[in-house]
Amino acid sequence: MTETSGPELTIDLGAVQANYRTLQSHLAETELAAVVKADAYGLGLGPVARALTEAGCKTFFVATSAEAVQLRVAESNAHIHVFNGPLPGEQAAFVEHALVPVLNSLEQLHNWSVYCTEIGAPGLADIQIDTGMTRLGLEAGDVARLSAEPGLLQSVTLDLAISHLACADQPDHAMNQEQLAAFRAAAGQIGTAGKSLASSSGIFLGAQYHFDMARAGAALFGLNPVPGGPNPMRQVIRIQGKILQVRSVDTVRSVGYGASHQATRPAKIATVAIGYGDGYPRALSNAGTAFIDSHEVPVVGRVSMDLTTLDVTDVPDSLLALGQPVDFAGPLNPVDQIAGQAGTIGYEILTSLGTRYQRRYVGGEGNAA
Amino acid sequence: MTETSGPELTIDLGAVQANYRTLQSHLAETELAAVVKADAYGLGLGPVARALTEAGCKTFFVATSAEAVQLRVAESNAHIHVFNGPLPGEQAAFVEHALVPVLNSLEQLHNWSVYCTEIGAPGLADIQIDTGMTRLGLEAGDVARLSAEPGLLQSVTLDLAISHLACADQPDHAMNQEQLAAFRAAAGQIGTAGKSLASSSGIFLGAQYHFDMARAGAALFGLNPVPGGPNPMRQVIRIQGKILQVRSVDTVRSVGYGASHQATRPAKIATVAIGYGDGYPRALSNAGTAFIDSHEVPVVGRVSMDLTTLDVTDVPDSLLALGQPVDFAGPLNPVDQIAGQAGTIGYEILTSLGTRYQRRYVGGEGNAA
Repeated sequence: MTETSGPELTIDLGAVQANYRTLQSHLAETELAAVVKADAYGLGLGPVARALTEAGCKTFFVATSAEAVQLRVAESNAHIHVFNGPLPGEQAAFVEHALVPVLNSLEQLHNWSVYCTEIGAPGLADIQIDTGMTRLGLEAGDVARLSAEPGLLQSVTLDLAISHLACADQPDHAMNQEQLAAFRAAAGQIGTAGKSLASSSGIFLGAQYHFDMARAGAALFGLNPVPGGPNPMRQVIRIQGKILQVRSVDTVRSVGYGASHQATRPAKIATVAIGYGDGYPRALSNAGTAFIDSHEVPVVGRVSMDLTTLDVTDVPDSLLALGQPVDFAGPLNPVDQIAGQAGTIGYEILTSLGTRYQRRYVGGEGNAA
Repeated sequence: MTETSGPELTIDLGAVQANYRTLQSHLAETELAAVVKADAYGLGLGPVARALTEAGCKTFFVATSAEAVQLRVAESNAHIHVFNGPLPGEQAAFVEHALVPVLNSLEQLHNWSVYCTEIGAPGLADIQIDTGMTRLGLEAGDVARLSAEPGLLQSVTLDLAISHLACADQPDHAMNQEQLAAFRAAAGQIGTAGKSLASSSGIFLGAQYHFDMARAGAALFGLNPVPGGPNPMRQVIRIQGKILQVRSVDTVRSVGYGASHQATRPAKIATVAIGYGDGYPRALSNAGTAFIDSHEVPVVGRVSMDLTTLDVTDVPDSLLALGQPVDFAGPLNPVDQIAGQAGTIGYEILTSLGTRYQRRYVGGEGNAA
């Protein structure tokens, strides 16, 4: 790989595989599917799906048919489910690439049934039940109608009943039990081949949430499925920027756009080639921290598009050479922590990883060192 | 283009060209260079550079040599300047692809001079002067030394002296005049072929800021270079998501993750296939607005990775069909406004545009409709 001043993103596929196995170990007989929408949460659909397949994963969920087609090219034997289900005009792509749509409304169900009847396709599909997200899925009235009118299912073979927990990361939240009860009742009325409720955090709510299949995304990629407790998952990404310049500041002066930071003591300021153009959030201006070797250094001034300035006064000069790598995410500053400092969640940090990184995949059988 | 449920991003290259001409019209004899780092602020380096070349742009600035090489492939005749300058080991790429490095420190200058001496290259380079950003560039002491020791420039031919204004979007900020004076003094000591200080907002500070070259990025892409006043630039992007489902809510119930929104009146909620996985900021949860035709609709509940829920109670049913497009950015909700609602700047909205959009380029000679 050519040397460049831009930042590097290292993705540990071995950690993704270890996380898959850790989650599977909580699930007994329940199948563990992988959620790889949004380019596998920003980590690269192709390499991540390959690593998960190596780890034993057979079923994948994505959001759109475009993502599914990309995955089908990479993994010809995968079972691929598509959360959004088909919009009008999109059904042919589902059939052509053997994608299982999640049908979210009686209208989508009707359209899929009509289409599959026309072309004589088996019409395998999941059905989503809205148990409290008020986002996608059948409501109680729709479920009752479907139960009363089985003709609505003409040419549709139901695979999974699925639903989604709104507050699974808060184990004591009353909604979890309410959604569980609503899901049991509705799925029982419909009579699908299988049932799936839990995502990453839901796996840790206990066996009654597991059903036939769990669908993990965030935890596979190192985010903590049990916030507030120790993270049982391995960190997957490391983000490193390189020092472009270090300057000594011995007079009072401002740093960066809007002069938002004032250096008021003799200080050393390092300018590093990473910024919000790489997905390092601008919200970390005067708030984030990075690590040079084991030295924690604060972000000073505003994060700009390509550059971030750090107060490196207490770092030895031997670690401040031109090109010195600086960790903006890694073992000492996990993604969840960065997200907390930026006022968001780790998911958004991952999906915002930009296209400018030099990406290195390590671990995984296809990437044996 | 295959139909898919994912969102669409329309990029108006004709507007980029019009913005180039508008800015050039403020500059008299000063050359207008385009800043196209971070994948042309997220809009696509290749198509944007092509459109700008058609509009008469000859000089481009990027952040890293990797970006520059990508641009060189697309625009073989462009003058390409690289803000970061070369790190050790990176010089050969600069020579091979005829890139002009911006040298930001005496150390970078020394390395470049040694390298160009070794290989007998002409060593064309810009020099950056830090006049108040405390980010990259020579300080006053470095400039004095360079002035006193012309031997430091052996094998280096200086093209531009450049600097960067910290507060150009605040015309009355005292730093503008201070940086202007510091730049004049320092650039005069060094004696480069030309001088460049102003970026987008700097162009509107008046002719004394223009020098030989201005470097515009944000304004080319539709961001307002004169915040607080009417935007003289044309909007460049339009973001549209599609409705996946509309539901009537007639009992009190919560919407989305964390149950952060409560529907307390009979309402219609539309779920649209766009989310923070597309760069639509999670910070717009319960805060953003979108448009369906001319109807402004608020975001309710949390923006999730692939889905956003809107209160569409007051929108006629004829505009709520499955697949109906919804504007998340466009003429009625310009990028600067979205950024303000999300607590950031338009630049970060642009560079966060994800890879999941179906991208359509319109306008520009190469894209004549």
